[in-house]
Amino acid sequence: MSTSTHEMSPAAARAAFREGVAVPTTGYSDGYAQANLMVLPKEYAFDFLLFAQRNPKPCPILGVLEPGQLNSELLPGGDIRTDIPKYRVYRDGELAGEYPDVTEFWRDDLVSFLIGCSFTFEGALLDNGIPVAHIEQGRNVPMYKTSIPTARAGRFHGPLVVSMRPIPASQIADAVRVTSRYPAVHGAPVHVGDPAAIGISDLASPDYGDAVEIPDGHIPVFWACGVTPQAAVMETKPSLAIAHAPGHMLVTDARDLQYQVP
Amino acid sequence: MSTSTHEMSPAAARAAFREGVAVPTTGYSDGYAQANLMVLPKEYAFDFLLFAQRNPKPCPILGVLEPGQLNSELLPGGDIRTDIPKYRVYRDGELAGEYPDVTEFWRDDLVSFLIGCSFTFEGALLDNGIPVAHIEQGRNVPMYKTSIPTARAGRFHGPLVVSMRPIPASQIADAVRVTSRYPAVHGAPVHVGDPAAIGISDLASPDYGDAVEIPDGHIPVFWACGVTPQAAVMETKPSLAIAHAPGHMLVTDARDLQYQVP
Repeated sequence: MSTSTHEMSPAAARAAFREGVAVPTTGYSDGYAQANLMVLPKEYAFDFLLFAQRNPKPCPILGVLEPGQLNSELLPGGDIRTDIPKYRVYRDGELAGEYPDVTEFWRDDLVSFLIGCSFTFEGALLDNGIPVAHIEQGRNVPMYKTSIPTARAGRFHGPLVVSMRPIPASQIADAVRVTSRYPAVHGAPVHVGDPAAIGISDLASPDYGDAVEIPDGHIPVFWACGVTPQAAVMETKPSLAIAHAPGHMLVTDARDLQYQVP
Repeated sequence: MSTSTHEMSPAAARAAFREGVAVPTTGYSDGYAQANLMVLPKEYAFDFLLFAQRNPKPCPILGVLEPGQLNSELLPGGDIRTDIPKYRVYRDGELAGEYPDVTEFWRDDLVSFLIGCSFTFEGALLDNGIPVAHIEQGRNVPMYKTSIPTARAGRFHGPLVVSMRPIPASQIADAVRVTSRYPAVHGAPVHVGDPAAIGISDLASPDYGDAVEIPDGHIPVFWACGVTPQAAVMETKPSLAIAHAPGHMLVTDARDLQYQVP
């Protein structure tokens, strides 16, 4: 992508996606938070919000659009049905298709949940001199289903999904310290080291995203991941669910720094 | 109260309240978190949980009991209908009565929300050498409705309610620092100084609790208060709501320290 995407305002980025640009959002609108999307019919909304409340590390809620609400201070003047570059539609827990616009599927009873994304703390890692392998290697972050269950809430349940970043052994403490300051965007790691201990048999075969090379002297470090809600949807099989396509996030008007705690 | 209440286990305290002891819970089970209660029919549950999500300072959710659930890890083996010393029942937003046991009003569709309480950070204030006037004066903390609106969620709306503690001017920075480490129990103050600026006309006439004397050189400091949900219920008028009576909290098995952040 060009330098101009880094400097694009969130409103301009959303306008481009609304007009049909359908690309991953890495590198758009530096310094602004990006968000995962999960849209569900109202009948599932309490169970899902409770699922998020009980699983704050994978599902940190940044905002909720109520039935009939299409924008908020996270996307002022925007339209949640068109402003993300690519969406996924699930029916009864099965992926039914990917679309650049989901207006045709919209219903008056849909509730939109906007969930924090680790892109926010990756900027802080880089600013602190900690390498982020998948960015260096030009790939999407690798994500894995684990043997760690989430806390069930009503009908929602499923495995914790994690993202993995290989970190030099001497910088693991710093990576923990830096990311623990961002509890609203997954926070501190959930696991450091041995993948088998959390049910991951092969780091080279991620369930989502791309595998990355693990340089000598680096240890795999695992963070709770915002794809966890999509895994729960596949287990729980609501009649309809609409999500962002992996890597194709909502670019919000919130600053990354807004989610940093002392 | 006797020393023994300070050293009583949370389970023993809840058993005493279940057997009919109906006293305020200040001074019970030192080091364990106490919680506000709000019970609502399922049809109001999404709106209320969203109200809490949008107003985390007055409504920090510690746990939710789903329909049919009467206990959790916050009250293992307990019964939310009997384990609080005194309850308030609201019908259509009006206080209908106070009861030591609400089993007779219980329905299968009720959801119980357990909300953080500032008793947790008062221990930390005292441990840091910061005086807490209402404890020294043997009174309940004074609470006031303000002119600050909460963020509306569905049908729920109403004024922010605050608690007030007079703090010596030289210790205000410390009081902010100490309480900001407890975001799950109201966190840092919402206002320091002039009561009129937030719509409080007379500190001597609190809306809930007792007035306290403000010693020379002390500044009134205001924290978001867990009575805010009861004020929202009075505005929103759900058909039924059950809450704790002010000062008569749920004594939980969670440690105060569990809610401290770095």
